[in-house]
Amino acid sequence: MELGPPGGSGPAEPGPRLRGLRGADAAASASSLSRFGAEAGCRASAVAAVLPAGGSGERMGVPTPKQFCPILERPLISYTLQALERVSWIKDIIVAVTRENMETMKGIIQRYQHKRISLVEAGVTRHRSIFNGLKALAEDQPNCRLSKPEVVIIHDAVRPFVEEDVLLKVVTAAQEHGASGAIRPLVSTVISPSADSCLDHSLERARYRASEMPQAFLFDVIYDAYQQCSDYDLEFGTECLHLALKYSHIKAKLVEGSPDLWKVTYKRDLYAAESIIKERISQKVCVVMDTKEDEEHVGHCLEEMLKTELNHVKVTSGQDLQQIILEQCYNFVCVNVMTSDFEETQRLLNMVEESNLSILYPVVVISVHFLDYESVPLGQKMEKVMQIREFAKEAKKRNILLSGLLIYFPQEIQRDLLH
Amino acid sequence: MELGPPGGSGPAEPGPRLRGLRGADAAASASSLSRFGAEAGCRASAVAAVLPAGGSGERMGVPTPKQFCPILERPLISYTLQALERVSWIKDIIVAVTRENMETMKGIIQRYQHKRISLVEAGVTRHRSIFNGLKALAEDQPNCRLSKPEVVIIHDAVRPFVEEDVLLKVVTAAQEHGASGAIRPLVSTVISPSADSCLDHSLERARYRASEMPQAFLFDVIYDAYQQCSDYDLEFGTECLHLALKYSHIKAKLVEGSPDLWKVTYKRDLYAAESIIKERISQKVCVVMDTKEDEEHVGHCLEEMLKTELNHVKVTSGQDLQQIILEQCYNFVCVNVMTSDFEETQRLLNMVEESNLSILYPVVVISVHFLDYESVPLGQKMEKVMQIREFAKEAKKRNILLSGLLIYFPQEIQRDLLH
Repeated sequence: MELGPPGGSGPAEPGPRLRGLRGADAAASASSLSRFGAEAGCRASAVAAVLPAGGSGERMGVPTPKQFCPILERPLISYTLQALERVSWIKDIIVAVTRENMETMKGIIQRYQHKRISLVEAGVTRHRSIFNGLKALAEDQPNCRLSKPEVVIIHDAVRPFVEEDVLLKVVTAAQEHGASGAIRPLVSTVISPSADSCLDHSLERARYRASEMPQAFLFDVIYDAYQQCSDYDLEFGTECLHLALKYSHIKAKLVEGSPDLWKVTYKRDLYAAESIIKERISQKVCVVMDTKEDEEHVGHCLEEMLKTELNHVKVTSGQDLQQIILEQCYNFVCVNVMTSDFEETQRLLNMVEESNLSILYPVVVISVHFLDYESVPLGQKMEKVMQIREFAKEAKKRNILLSGLLIYFPQEIQRDLLH
Repeated sequence: MELGPPGGSGPAEPGPRLRGLRGADAAASASSLSRFGAEAGCRASAVAAVLPAGGSGERMGVPTPKQFCPILERPLISYTLQALERVSWIKDIIVAVTRENMETMKGIIQRYQHKRISLVEAGVTRHRSIFNGLKALAEDQPNCRLSKPEVVIIHDAVRPFVEEDVLLKVVTAAQEHGASGAIRPLVSTVISPSADSCLDHSLERARYRASEMPQAFLFDVIYDAYQQCSDYDLEFGTECLHLALKYSHIKAKLVEGSPDLWKVTYKRDLYAAESIIKERISQKVCVVMDTKEDEEHVGHCLEEMLKTELNHVKVTSGQDLQQIILEQCYNFVCVNVMTSDFEETQRLLNMVEESNLSILYPVVVISVHFLDYESVPLGQKMEKVMQIREFAKEAKKRNILLSGLLIYFPQEIQRDLLH
């Protein structure tokens, strides 16, 4: 059943594809990481996540289960997996899917190169799916190939916007209290109807909260609770926190979550998720430099400046472009310091085209060229301009918006800039 | 303060601009209308609506109060007013807005030609705003220019997708039980935290419901309740149903509402609302005929056919085009049975352009031309095709997507079709 690498041995540091994507969050993220490492000591590696994804999506009014609904052609669950994968200290991610969706899920993992994922079969209810996920991590189960974590996160496949921040909060709270969960204020007043559908009483809104995901538990706390569960709990229960209270006598610590934690439930939520993803895309840029040396010098200056405006800035000299495109970066600045032609830009355009990234949403590429003000004659400058225009015209047919930026300056300044 | 016509004397039948817009719902709507009329007897005219719209939208994270946030350049509250206005048996709509937004609101009413609206000043809290709205309808208030309704609907300015169907349900239930409100299943489990932010207990989700809007009350029931309210209720209370229970001892009848009743609360809800409005736009078409005679014959055939595919089909010979455009119809079929040039289409294009309708979203116009197969020579046909192309090129610059459809057939068939 397992598809990811066995043993939960993901890299301890974020891979190269993660470093830049965090952009402005990188510093905060790094400090959280070390804080968590320090608190958890040698047990820092012992966090896993279980994701029940066996739902049928009946509330959605669409035939596809909501976790597989495409947003910009990519299934919703792939965004959620990406959000969890970015957190390097989550060592294993167990996804519970129904037998009929197993192949679909394997295809998604392969296509979007998800890492550290193990698949288990979903149960008939949400609780049974979670239990199956926990069993895959428990040492007392036969054929268990994953190591038992100290803490297990339980999250929903249909909450794609979970941040490292809240994951860290529930995990550390679970270490201290045994159980923890994200909560939100109630949007509507909650009422209790009588048998004849009349108002019996309404609850005082300020005294209650909506229980959301992620939740985290000491593994033994939640696994013990599930082992003691009645069939009724497994069939009709909705709440892991409640099971931890009922069977393991643990009062979960409640952590205030952000509005973005909401669960994609109705069709309108898919629209909202798409718009949030588009907004994030507009905040993400990749700067492609033509040499490693430029990446370190000019690239760094550019990165600092762009970071004042954008959330996610990644600089590369091109080795990991394929991965960056795969992670849905739609904005590129292609800097050609040493070359005066469009090699780098052309290479990028080809990769973008092959990826089909621009099918649903336009890709923006700014091609920047530095040319010596004195040594390059006017005619040659004009030729450049015309070349970019022709390129742009062709690219536009494929929904790629290409602009050119020519920067002319004396050779000495260029030298200063580079050294 | 009042802006709408005094005395709550809106038209008893929907105006011409409403008839066609209902499209597929027209039959259902008409039968509901008569059902309500029959049940309510001579009191059928005595329904008003109160809309508290004094909120500041702090949860939104945007400076504009959410009810004034634009969706396709039109403020959210204007969609809600439109939804209420379409219901001809709602005689008065009282909107409570803060003093500082009074002019903005008057501007919206004028710009979108809203009818039957009276403005009152909002209170500091939602309950105070509703109370101010009720006072404007109460006979015991000085300077009251509106007549007291039998039933009052209370709705939110930020729930734009309310349908006549659910309004009718709460109003008839209020007539029978004294109070009524729309409910929805809970999306999240509701929990009660202890003082130290730990889980105290969670509620059994199946036994509770979210209380939504619209709600409806016998006017005396809710007005009496508000008159008895404590300051604490007016400051911190959230629920009109609760006030009716507490002070008028009325157990409200609860009515299951549709998912579209949800309240626009967070920024993501604006995205969702925009997508729903765009989806509705794609379901709405207006067929413009060049003569009244055509409207009745060819237009009717077309309407029947289009209705099998689209929710809202409106046929006109052009008198009410301005109003149709104002109500955000983005799809037009312009049929020229008798004329062989583009007069009708050109007139439509001019009106669309003047309205600025296409600024944010493309307007689609299909220009249909019937020409005699035998009498029109090939050269003339080609000329037509070229003309449409030129037109389309120009229109596209203004985000209007114009297509031409030429139908050639012998004169006899045309005569058969028309008579």
